[in-house]
Amino acid sequence: MTLSTTPRTTLGRLRERGATDRTALHDVLDAGLVCHVGLVRDGAPVVLPTGYGRIGDTLYLHGSTGARWLRAGPVCVTVTHLDGLVYARSVFHFSMNYRSAVVFAEARTVADEQERWAALEAIVEHLAPGSWGYARVPNRRELAATVVLAVDLTEASVKVRTGPPGDDPEDVTDAVWAGVVPLTGGYGTPQPDAHVPAGTEPPPHVRTR
Amino acid sequence: MTLSTTPRTTLGRLRERGATDRTALHDVLDAGLVCHVGLVRDGAPVVLPTGYGRIGDTLYLHGSTGARWLRAGPVCVTVTHLDGLVYARSVFHFSMNYRSAVVFAEARTVADEQERWAALEAIVEHLAPGSWGYARVPNRRELAATVVLAVDLTEASVKVRTGPPGDDPEDVTDAVWAGVVPLTGGYGTPQPDAHVPAGTEPPPHVRTR
Repeated sequence: MTLSTTPRTTLGRLRERGATDRTALHDVLDAGLVCHVGLVRDGAPVVLPTGYGRIGDTLYLHGSTGARWLRAGPVCVTVTHLDGLVYARSVFHFSMNYRSAVVFAEARTVADEQERWAALEAIVEHLAPGSWGYARVPNRRELAATVVLAVDLTEASVKVRTGPPGDDPEDVTDAVWAGVVPLTGGYGTPQPDAHVPAGTEPPPHVRTR
Repeated sequence: MTLSTTPRTTLGRLRERGATDRTALHDVLDAGLVCHVGLVRDGAPVVLPTGYGRIGDTLYLHGSTGARWLRAGPVCVTVTHLDGLVYARSVFHFSMNYRSAVVFAEARTVADEQERWAALEAIVEHLAPGSWGYARVPNRRELAATVVLAVDLTEASVKVRTGPPGDDPEDVTDAVWAGVVPLTGGYGTPQPDAHVPAGTEPPPHVRTR
């Protein structure tokens, strides 16, 4: 991620790997809210943020039928979590603690209505657990306006950096502080919109987020 | 970002736009810690997370000379901030509040030593303000092992979504809660590494992060 040459756990391409690596991949994907989708348009790269959902070893993306980027073809889907800033004694070893998953696939347009429905449920439940069935599910018109893409998770890599800076021994001195500043994240107090009657509590699946 | 068709502020391509949009672009870039860099390798997209720094209308990336992806050529650099989860009364209108910047450029390898030095300072100061000059600056060997790429910010787009869900009027009912769950983020307590003498306070630029 940065100048750092600190050893990292690179799980590498998962094609020929076992259940542990696959679990690590799922964990990184499931912990995220947005992915960055890369595609090639007129020979040049395009990277866009978007939500997603996962069912087994398939990631699902969705969007408007009008979205130019939502087409079958080669994609790279990357999910990154930043866990900490790594302050070293030399700027060369400054780094970040992070977990990332990079997926390479040929995106497939989902045509089957049952798979589309399951994918949309997975996407909504990933973003906002407990919301599918609480909020109104899509109607015919909304479904017709929505494209769903499937991304196979077979070819992927997971990288993780944890721990303190990897300073050169000759740089270690009491005069310079080094360590990790953790990055924290969470959910704030739910803000009802103007149509929610005063005094209404958010439902449990929102309140306990 | 999601199914939502809620109106967004799309500042669009900035090439022919004024100072306000450029400020919006700088603000989104400056508020981030990592970008997602997209490039084309063997005809397929690759998206990788990495740190960055900005000087005026140039974004700088860096990494090891051994990194295959750090080459001059077409890139797309995207920075995304998630500000909130938007809970609507129909799943079709679920969304996220976010700010994103998408930059399209032909990356240039920086050869000039003065520009390389300034770029590395900008990258370190972006990640960890106050650290350049506190920690040891790069030596000859470290500089030789580092590639710096420059990305021109001329062609970029900024998108921002804020505010409540954009529900259809017929879905608005007292029975369903809708609103925004803010996403919060911050810095935790600095964790010194094992070589920092017990009782040492982090320096002000770390403590006040």
